Amino acid sequence: MVSFKFSPTEQSFPPPNVLLRLKELQDVPVNYHPLNPLSFLLRAAEIYPDKVAIAHPNTEQPVVYTFSVWAQRVQNLAFALVKFGIRPGDRVAVIAPNSPLIADAHFGIIAARAILCPINTRLKLHEVAYILEHSGSKLILVDYEYIDLIRGTAIPYIVCKDTGRAGDPYEGFLTEGRLFSQERGWQGLDVEKDENAPAVLCYTSGTTGRPKGVLTTLRGSYLSAIANAYECQLNYTSTYLWILPMFHAAGWTFPWANVFAFATQITLRTVNYTQIWHHLIHSHVTHFCGAPTVQIGLVNDPLAQKVPQSVTAVIAGSAPTPHLIAELEKKGIKPVHVYGLTQTYGPFTRNYAQASWSSLSHDQRSKLMARQGHAFATAEEVRVVSTKEEHGDKLVDVPRDGKTLGEIVTRGNIVMREYFNDPEATGKAFRGGAFRTGDLAVWNSDGSVSVLDRSKDIIISGGENASSLAIEQELITHPHVLEVSVVARAHHKWGERPMAFVTLHLQHVNRWKGRQHEFEKELKQHAKERLPGFACPEWVIIVPELPKTSTGKILKTELRKVAAKL
Amino acid sequence: MVSFKFSPTEQSFPPPNVLLRLKELQDVPVNYHPLNPLSFLLRAAEIYPDKVAIAHPNTEQPVVYTFSVWAQRVQNLAFALVKFGIRPGDRVAVIAPNSPLIADAHFGIIAARAILCPINTRLKLHEVAYILEHSGSKLILVDYEYIDLIRGTAIPYIVCKDTGRAGDPYEGFLTEGRLFSQERGWQGLDVEKDENAPAVLCYTSGTTGRPKGVLTTLRGSYLSAIANAYECQLNYTSTYLWILPMFHAAGWTFPWANVFAFATQITLRTVNYTQIWHHLIHSHVTHFCGAPTVQIGLVNDPLAQKVPQSVTAVIAGSAPTPHLIAELEKKGIKPVHVYGLTQTYGPFTRNYAQASWSSLSHDQRSKLMARQGHAFATAEEVRVVSTKEEHGDKLVDVPRDGKTLGEIVTRGNIVMREYFNDPEATGKAFRGGAFRTGDLAVWNSDGSVSVLDRSKDIIISGGENASSLAIEQELITHPHVLEVSVVARAHHKWGERPMAFVTLHLQHVNRWKGRQHEFEKELKQHAKERLPGFACPEWVIIVPELPKTSTGKILKTELRKVAAKL
Repeated sequence: MVSFKFSPTEQSFPPPNVLLRLKELQDVPVNYHPLNPLSFLLRAAEIYPDKVAIAHPNTEQPVVYTFSVWAQRVQNLAFALVKFGIRPGDRVAVIAPNSPLIADAHFGIIAARAILCPINTRLKLHEVAYILEHSGSKLILVDYEYIDLIRGTAIPYIVCKDTGRAGDPYEGFLTEGRLFSQERGWQGLDVEKDENAPAVLCYTSGTTGRPKGVLTTLRGSYLSAIANAYECQLNYTSTYLWILPMFHAAGWTFPWANVFAFATQITLRTVNYTQIWHHLIHSHVTHFCGAPTVQIGLVNDPLAQKVPQSVTAVIAGSAPTPHLIAELEKKGIKPVHVYGLTQTYGPFTRNYAQASWSSLSHDQRSKLMARQGHAFATAEEVRVVSTKEEHGDKLVDVPRDGKTLGEIVTRGNIVMREYFNDPEATGKAFRGGAFRTGDLAVWNSDGSVSVLDRSKDIIISGGENASSLAIEQELITHPHVLEVSVVARAHHKWGERPMAFVTLHLQHVNRWKGRQHEFEKELKQHAKERLPGFACPEWVIIVPELPKTSTGKILKTELRKVAAKL
Repeated sequence: MVSFKFSPTEQSFPPPNVLLRLKELQDVPVNYHPLNPLSFLLRAAEIYPDKVAIAHPNTEQPVVYTFSVWAQRVQNLAFALVKFGIRPGDRVAVIAPNSPLIADAHFGIIAARAILCPINTRLKLHEVAYILEHSGSKLILVDYEYIDLIRGTAIPYIVCKDTGRAGDPYEGFLTEGRLFSQERGWQGLDVEKDENAPAVLCYTSGTTGRPKGVLTTLRGSYLSAIANAYECQLNYTSTYLWILPMFHAAGWTFPWANVFAFATQITLRTVNYTQIWHHLIHSHVTHFCGAPTVQIGLVNDPLAQKVPQSVTAVIAGSAPTPHLIAELEKKGIKPVHVYGLTQTYGPFTRNYAQASWSSLSHDQRSKLMARQGHAFATAEEVRVVSTKEEHGDKLVDVPRDGKTLGEIVTRGNIVMREYFNDPEATGKAFRGGAFRTGDLAVWNSDGSVSVLDRSKDIIISGGENASSLAIEQELITHPHVLEVSVVARAHHKWGERPMAFVTLHLQHVNRWKGRQHEFEKELKQHAKERLPGFACPEWVIIVPELPKTSTGKILKTELRKVAAKL
């Protein structure tokens, strides 16, 4: 698949008789081992030492590591952290695009019993500063391209030039770790005894107020990763392409899931459709994850074509539209629709296909596939509960009528441990004895849930609740619309009314150039045929592109600001 | 697939708005749920209510249950047990062939927070009496065909006529449970809070001395079942055929693994190759488990042919021979070779295929496939340690030279909790801080293990250790040999010498009739070309069949008795 010349540094190679076994825990029963995703890597290195674990091909200095070499590098990183002074429970920040550095960090930092704090590379200087301070990070591992993001920090940092070659400061750091280890190997590293110990501290994007630190555990990471490997049918013949940023919710636990499955991972620094299509076609890629916006870009790319092998695309962030599902399937890409949040280690529901769907029309089937579905493999419980004030914090199920709006809640092993250093926010999120997602949904008669909106995305028009998502799902069916986002805008008479921002398919851009008004009329007519009056957009605006978060989610907050100013 | 008319009893149907959710635990954190395989069934009934969960076709009164109906029946069973007076931690014995009864028991008994004690149906009266007494079982669920096995017992029992119809005492028991529930449903059953609570109590066959009770936990059962579903790629399109008895090591956790995967299970009361081939060909069977002897019978059956869909055969008990692997593959059946014991919830190692094997000859590849391999998905650690007296209880790894004999040990979440009411035996099994399998093995340079023998199966011939397994693996390559078993027999000069018992392929039986001596000569010559002198059989005997345990393991103890008398 990926071919180029590369030799890892001398210190990346394990000693001849490497012992791939964690240090023995004292005082634990023979029949107990704390669940910890670190064990996946040692097992992979033991069983498939020479298989490619990570390939990082699209850089000036590409690198590729086998499981054997990668495990050694992770061990070096753990020792380097210990030598640096990192102690159990300390936070180590990582600012990097998808690359071996951040993949290493998912194992090496927990191997040092520290907490990985991945930081979104698209944040502003002051936002990064806030996270570094709030997390109390003791050390930063930073990719060369993002050094500006830590300008002025007093926290020590190690720069990674992403070369994998001698002379790279990160490589120097790893080499120091290897030397410090004095070849004690895995037996020289203490093992975390408590499976509920923290693993990762991810900050939410904080659309309102300060970002909050989502703290997860080793047990939750282990169980989520296995669930993802199982649900996506990852195995040792799989090749996973990193499109989703690893810094986002610990890559939905796929950095571990892939290793559990002995899959090969390909990392790409940026979302570049030319590179992605190259790998889909030439590198036997079988799996990737991404928000619908990324997948829309993918299927609309000029290079888009039928893939030569079976590919599974895990979609989350928002529901895939019928159009997107059809486009993916046409290209031989099987969509798996999941739903989750950083607080739930990524996916905690999945849309489970039913045999009976095969007899439905594409549109009917796609509508069912757009539902968020049922509890995921190791998730315990998913409910939609009433948001009525009279119920207070009590969890009262809404009827399974597909109509009554409620809040999705969950509980169990794949719910975060807490908001870091924020007992008040944790208490609020866990009130009533379940994790409150803040997402509004209906419960369908088949037990599946359909997310309608974040509470704030509901548009209250003339006293009626209009779901911006439901409106978007109808507008996107217009053949000229590429993407659409609907937000509330104040209205003198109705309180709020929906406003739609759309981008057009490339081949239709010229047709509507200078004819904004005509297009608005046409799209409103399209809406009128499909939606109740209160849900029809009052305003439609064509834009060249929609503002998005680093993870491809449309920034409705930005659109609301635009709407307010108009 | 399986088609016949059947209506479950009225009480098997859930109420219209059944709530498939376990009772909420008090005082557990929002982010914790005790691992418990019971949750698999509620999830399956929620997501695929109308999919066939269990079909039991080959009886006079066949039955078939959907996940929805089955979950209700399991709930009824749990309530019936509670009504009967079963309390948390009580043992409930089950004596049944593969049938809905024993499948129910794997969920219903743990739903009542009791311990399932499955009893081998091929035991003698006094053996069953011992197990009933030692386990302190409070109640017996017994299949009509095996009532004689509990003759004279003072323990209350419920007979199952395996009809699924009104009038069957077991159905009456379930109905009582439903009535007793007063439609409280799952919310009316207390949930076990401790994931380390006992789940199953399986008695080993006890080749020497009294059988020992292997007590497992909910956590171990959950993690093993998920590992089996993952390793065998079970999913909602799978159909699993029950050939392995479910009473054997809780069916290697497949009663739960199948439900985790939403697979359909077909139960057969007996190992009947005509029935098995019928289902392989006509019922879309994708998976089954069995010892090599069963699989040998299968591929040698006159009905054997290429299966129309992809089938995975999980093989354990002893290593598959190259001949067996070839025969299975010819029929489109993919062998997955695993190794484990009742004490490890079934499989804890697996033979992981390497890409490089594809360039090897069939014989070379088969030899590698016969290795027991590496630690299984949720197993933590597998080692081969020295049995030298000088090391005492200390775990000292043998070199990975493929030669030095040691004992396989393991530890972690998929090791039993203890031997029930036998702290001495537990202490002995866990000495040095690992579970001692008692199986002798070598550690190969690739980190895989190869089981050679149970300690007692080693033949000490002239001071040399000859592995009976290694001898058998060479003898089986003779084209006329169907099965072979080698045991030690006293020898005046060498101390012990190997003695081989063989059965012949049907088409070769007549060729050697009355020519026992000539065959002995030919097989010894065959051995001489392949084995060192001390490992060549001194005696060869053709027998019509080999004595076997109920689970298809060859009873070497019986053969040793025969050898001693000759």
